[in-house]
Amino acid sequence: MILGIDLGGTKSAALVLHEDGTVVRRVVAPTPADAKAEELFAFLVGLAQQVRGAETVVGVGVSAGAPADAAHGLVFAAPNLPGWGSTGFPLAARLSEALALPVKIENDADATALAEWRFGAGQGTRNMAFLTVGTGIGSGLILDGRLHRGRRGAGGEIGHITVVPNGRACSCGLRGCLEAYASGPAVTKIAQEFGWCGELTGRAVVEGARAENAACLAALNQAAELLGQALATLAMLLDLERIVLGTLAVHAADLLLPKIRATLRAHAWPRLTEGLDIVPAALGDQAQDLAALCAWGTS
Amino acid sequence: MILGIDLGGTKSAALVLHEDGTVVRRVVAPTPADAKAEELFAFLVGLAQQVRGAETVVGVGVSAGAPADAAHGLVFAAPNLPGWGSTGFPLAARLSEALALPVKIENDADATALAEWRFGAGQGTRNMAFLTVGTGIGSGLILDGRLHRGRRGAGGEIGHITVVPNGRACSCGLRGCLEAYASGPAVTKIAQEFGWCGELTGRAVVEGARAENAACLAALNQAAELLGQALATLAMLLDLERIVLGTLAVHAADLLLPKIRATLRAHAWPRLTEGLDIVPAALGDQAQDLAALCAWGTS
Repeated sequence: MILGIDLGGTKSAALVLHEDGTVVRRVVAPTPADAKAEELFAFLVGLAQQVRGAETVVGVGVSAGAPADAAHGLVFAAPNLPGWGSTGFPLAARLSEALALPVKIENDADATALAEWRFGAGQGTRNMAFLTVGTGIGSGLILDGRLHRGRRGAGGEIGHITVVPNGRACSCGLRGCLEAYASGPAVTKIAQEFGWCGELTGRAVVEGARAENAACLAALNQAAELLGQALATLAMLLDLERIVLGTLAVHAADLLLPKIRATLRAHAWPRLTEGLDIVPAALGDQAQDLAALCAWGTS
Repeated sequence: MILGIDLGGTKSAALVLHEDGTVVRRVVAPTPADAKAEELFAFLVGLAQQVRGAETVVGVGVSAGAPADAAHGLVFAAPNLPGWGSTGFPLAARLSEALALPVKIENDADATALAEWRFGAGQGTRNMAFLTVGTGIGSGLILDGRLHRGRRGAGGEIGHITVVPNGRACSCGLRGCLEAYASGPAVTKIAQEFGWCGELTGRAVVEGARAENAACLAALNQAAELLGQALATLAMLLDLERIVLGTLAVHAADLLLPKIRATLRAHAWPRLTEGLDIVPAALGDQAQDLAALCAWGTS
């Protein structure tokens, strides 16, 4: 059995689960997102102790909604979890001490990439990218049959590559980032600028587009185009077999995927796009549990 | 001893060299670039037989100026070596049969990345990119301590990622590729459009810029800016320790590197650029010999 921790910006979960992904028990609680590192740490220890039962647990996997250095077990401040600080909190070592168990940590995009690769839409590949397209846009890369970590586990920032030079201001401080056009909040804001007067949520804009509202369609169309352009960059650089798209791209796959695929082909060579599948993520509600498992299990 | 073959679009070389890179003997001949596959093959066999002496050779490394699938030992047509065809010529198997030696093949950008990593400006890193910025722009990626190959060894096409949506037409058929702005021929053409009336070579434009010709400076400046933007994409995606730039970026390092570094920082987060070195390639004239060695030696 594994003890999984899914640390999110809104809520967090601790769970006991089998190596095959079967969940035995789960506790969920709102994350004290504005808390300082020690308070966040105590919150996670509390969740873990609450979920532990009589089972023998061999280790703890943490899927962290924050930048993480898996090699050194550190987590860093994220916009919605600033408490970890910029120099890195030694979460693996501290949790390991508190729970008397070995602990492994992955950034949630990397952990979910591993989960989709092992259990979901990425099965059977050796070169795939997983993108989460939600409030933010992040990615995890499986390259030549293993998770790419890079220098300090800080890559995968496809949401912040420049897709429009000198383009829209991004919340990260740069300009023209993919996330400034294609995240849920960006699509919503752009739909509003294009004249959408309905509810300002990603889901409402998707429904608006399904009802053929021109503003919603134009905003989603632009998002799909720039997603396709960014995926073309991934394909040209990395020669992938599959790209798995999560969140918005699952809810709005019908609206986004045809345009994403067409734009990808317009920005990349046939040699690198033939046989490259662009597919929605397959794990749905299970993704976070399995991400915590994979943070432990496949590192 | 290793038998190295450097297959170029203009000339090719065969050499006998030690594992430490010391060259014992070399023959060079113009490549019959327009020839069909069998004739190209016969040319390479001839070169190899010519260079072989009494030494015991353990294997053959081929650094191919053409797309190569290292896993299957195939080479494919390149714009300046169309003869190999689009379905892949089994160069490793055929050479192995003809020379009675094991043969390994790498694309020259990958082989040179390995050479710079092992012997040159990339030593000591685990995550680096090598870019050749010459007639074309290609790259090889060392990720988590090994050469990234991807699905069929066809990635690394940083020259053809979109840096200006709907931008200049590229010789590859796409628009707005980095290569359409920053390759030697592109810089030359753009300098001419900007009013340069001197010799139409990359070297002349670099000299023009050193003499403060405004057209040459503007063309090189634009190239450096878009190179910096493309390197920012690499950094944000892959969390690299070092980026090694070859060819034009070596000859014109003084003109290009400050602008490249500044633009990189303007398009990427400090977390991914701090400690990321952008350096000129170090191997100079030795690069091709060592690339052939590394095609054999580090796969």
